[in-house]
Amino acid sequence: MAITEDWQALIDQKLIHRASQIPQEWKVSSDLTELVRPDTSTSAFDLLRRTALLSPRELEITETNSAQSLVELLAACQITSLEVTTAFCKRAAIAQQLTNCLTEIFFDQAIARAKELDEYIVKNGRPMGPFHGLPISLKDTFMIEGQAATLGFISFLKKPNATKNSSLVDMLLEGGAVLYVKTNVPQTLFTCESYNRLFGTTMNPHNLSLTAGGSSSGEGALVGIRGSILGVGSDIGGSVRVPSLCNGIYGFKPTANRVPFGGQQELIRKGWPGILPSAGPHAHSAADLTFFVRSVLLSKPWLKDSTALAVQWREIPKKTRLTIGVFFNDPMFPVFPPISRALQAAVVKLKSAGHDIVVVAAPPIVTGVKGACRSFMLDTNDTISKHLEESGEDPIECLRQSNPADFLKQDVFSLDDVWQFTAEREDHREEWGKVWRENQLDVLLCPASRGTAVPHDKYGAPVYTLIWNFLDFPASVIPYEHASKSLDTEEMDEFNIDEVDGAPCHVQIVGWQFQDEEVLSATETIAEVLNP
Amino acid sequence: MAITEDWQALIDQKLIHRASQIPQEWKVSSDLTELVRPDTSTSAFDLLRRTALLSPRELEITETNSAQSLVELLAACQITSLEVTTAFCKRAAIAQQLTNCLTEIFFDQAIARAKELDEYIVKNGRPMGPFHGLPISLKDTFMIEGQAATLGFISFLKKPNATKNSSLVDMLLEGGAVLYVKTNVPQTLFTCESYNRLFGTTMNPHNLSLTAGGSSSGEGALVGIRGSILGVGSDIGGSVRVPSLCNGIYGFKPTANRVPFGGQQELIRKGWPGILPSAGPHAHSAADLTFFVRSVLLSKPWLKDSTALAVQWREIPKKTRLTIGVFFNDPMFPVFPPISRALQAAVVKLKSAGHDIVVVAAPPIVTGVKGACRSFMLDTNDTISKHLEESGEDPIECLRQSNPADFLKQDVFSLDDVWQFTAEREDHREEWGKVWRENQLDVLLCPASRGTAVPHDKYGAPVYTLIWNFLDFPASVIPYEHASKSLDTEEMDEFNIDEVDGAPCHVQIVGWQFQDEEVLSATETIAEVLNP
Repeated sequence: MAITEDWQALIDQKLIHRASQIPQEWKVSSDLTELVRPDTSTSAFDLLRRTALLSPRELEITETNSAQSLVELLAACQITSLEVTTAFCKRAAIAQQLTNCLTEIFFDQAIARAKELDEYIVKNGRPMGPFHGLPISLKDTFMIEGQAATLGFISFLKKPNATKNSSLVDMLLEGGAVLYVKTNVPQTLFTCESYNRLFGTTMNPHNLSLTAGGSSSGEGALVGIRGSILGVGSDIGGSVRVPSLCNGIYGFKPTANRVPFGGQQELIRKGWPGILPSAGPHAHSAADLTFFVRSVLLSKPWLKDSTALAVQWREIPKKTRLTIGVFFNDPMFPVFPPISRALQAAVVKLKSAGHDIVVVAAPPIVTGVKGACRSFMLDTNDTISKHLEESGEDPIECLRQSNPADFLKQDVFSLDDVWQFTAEREDHREEWGKVWRENQLDVLLCPASRGTAVPHDKYGAPVYTLIWNFLDFPASVIPYEHASKSLDTEEMDEFNIDEVDGAPCHVQIVGWQFQDEEVLSATETIAEVLNP
Repeated sequence: MAITEDWQALIDQKLIHRASQIPQEWKVSSDLTELVRPDTSTSAFDLLRRTALLSPRELEITETNSAQSLVELLAACQITSLEVTTAFCKRAAIAQQLTNCLTEIFFDQAIARAKELDEYIVKNGRPMGPFHGLPISLKDTFMIEGQAATLGFISFLKKPNATKNSSLVDMLLEGGAVLYVKTNVPQTLFTCESYNRLFGTTMNPHNLSLTAGGSSSGEGALVGIRGSILGVGSDIGGSVRVPSLCNGIYGFKPTANRVPFGGQQELIRKGWPGILPSAGPHAHSAADLTFFVRSVLLSKPWLKDSTALAVQWREIPKKTRLTIGVFFNDPMFPVFPPISRALQAAVVKLKSAGHDIVVVAAPPIVTGVKGACRSFMLDTNDTISKHLEESGEDPIECLRQSNPADFLKQDVFSLDDVWQFTAEREDHREEWGKVWRENQLDVLLCPASRGTAVPHDKYGAPVYTLIWNFLDFPASVIPYEHASKSLDTEEMDEFNIDEVDGAPCHVQIVGWQFQDEEVLSATETIAEVLNP
């Protein structure tokens, strides 16, 4: 298929509008932007330094690791929201020019909002809420009144801008947050390659030739390059965790519908009976993951959003000695040397920090992968393909390469597959239940992907994250170690250390359904050991 | 179809076995059992007095309203489990002869267990657990090692006895409970008429010509006549609440999978994508509903049963002033005079006790009824009919009269209906969400049925309970008032006061999903006002 001139005109108009939202004085010079290409291993961090656009003070603000400490300074009036917001807007503008991570940009509104919040705190003598004055970035799927939510579909350019906020957006605003950008997603959102035919490729700031992951691709890249200190993505198969691990940041997928998901842009028709997506944070510290989830849940989202579960936040005592189950690898989906090394190093460190490590016999993850893929085939109307057809978009390369149905060797899906999906999930949960019970686990430590970020179009199925969506288990990723040419010398199929040298590695922390509090607490404890 | 001689021989054998489990000295004389017929308005309470089988002490023990206070006496060694268990076994034996409420009877084991528990507490100086020494009755659907679980299906007579306990059974035993009987259910469990072709009709102790409700029919009758002080049923459309309201007792349907449901007898194949059933208690006081649910949840069922949600019990402060939404009636399903009167009287009492009453505009309940019925049509294999066909059982009268599909005027059900079910539930939850938010409700007060218990085969669809299963909202019933020939004089279609004079009336208390703690607390508060 081909994009008609009419659609192309709409695309051009959209991209011109997006570019126009970046002030002239924040533009990166063309000698640097010429270097921005998804086929070069350039570091966007290097390019950012070379722009020299950020003042030392702006670098200091945007390179802090703790949103919570920024909020404390804001609440104590030791810094203004205007200063913080301006610094992040500026850095996000640069990030956009170096990684193409944004879809909607509204710095003017953000600056105006920041000024209002600065006045609010002076006038009222207290912050508006837990996020007072803090810029928070959002995946394109969230609805913000007056803003578009195209999800990278050309056909969605004809949709009107949002007339109503998603429920989480309302809660963030009531909590005093400053919204300033929305971030890019892959075509269809059902792939980890950060590319769509409307906005193009989002690149990994660590190495532009690598994917930023998906589907919260833009969040990954933006938070990765510190154009945001706290971002919100969503995850139905790894979409928060994959961009987090690709870009060397922290990420957390809660149990579905604890963080409210109501009122997002409609990707498929209502009534989806498969795996439920979760909204979750990207951050630069484990404590900020907790800060975000705790603050949202303490505002009792179920009182505002009928889709949010009325499962209250629990304050739990921090365990000083965790029982951590470990599983290193599933032979069917071999884990590459950098991730194996990171995981082994983590185990050594955690042991010497006094935690109990139990290597567990994990059930074959293909069971979870198949069950999840079955659920992804339940839209027999194929709504998403229709979004593409409407404007004549062809599927992108990585979607042509793989299809969830490949795991199942099955063409036709019916009511019986819903029964099978539900039964498979119950059985697989029981298999993991035995592992959990026999070992009295607090959490599980495992890879979140076979490798680090990989060159564009090569990520494949996110099996090590997907299995936890299938089970609806909360899971986080902690950035830890980097791929290294000198250390990761083992040869393996599909692994090329030259392509990924220096890319961030990670570990994944998983807990039982509804034990989000335990996973977040363990993530903090483990992060203190790994990244002191 | 007809039952072959081979099947009839199995039925006879089963009934002879059941009768043989009642000791000779607990047999009711034939001049009284001759009066036990489902077509007479005889009161089983009267017959029970006339048996004179129970000593004053046994009457005192079995007629206490509080299982919790019995447990306190047991824990303080002020009464023995042997004495308590013997009293309830004896009264259950009489209940069986007067209402036909039991399926499995194992008094010998119960007495032996009681003796063990009495020794345990002396030896260890502490009770085994929260249910120490207390007899608890169970619906036939629960699996108890060594016992049958026929669910009233003739074909299930060929199934082996249970080799493993249901997870809740394990937890009750670990908590020190004494199990002594299992209780009858209607054919297929999907009707409120208390009749199946294996065990026959369970009769309402208040008036044998009335249904005991269903599907936890036997629990309703047994707890109703005080052959049990605490029973466990299950509820997918009203199956705990309907028998409770029919028999004048308290009942509670929790949010699904909070009270563990794993390991029950299989009624349909695994993977059911529709409304989830809930296990819940029948009792003689609101406090005992809380006692049961709290005790079970404090034992952290998710650590033992992978199907139980890891949503912890929350201790909440008791609200002295509740905001109670009220809805009296849906014009499409008119509520009969005794229940309207009870509800109006309750409102008056609750107002004068200082609670805030808000009459709410309820969305049409037919929406919830249709959504629920759609979910009941999703087993296109029609597994349940096959259980009947296997032995040549015909469907019973009330199942022939009505079918969930009648509400939908639809014959064929497919994958699309799962989407529709899920979407309808989300929409209907949002409709109720608006009601809850606009009125800042703690709980909702409403009828749990159009009327009281009705003559056999006339109950119809349990629409006023079913809608809360559709939404997965926790709901309790409180017995309150009785149908009265002198007070309920208004004439209405399908209502005949002569048939139901004296039958127990009720109110229903409903809360938002996962707010089981709030519903239980409000049920206690409201019960203190209504039944001081």
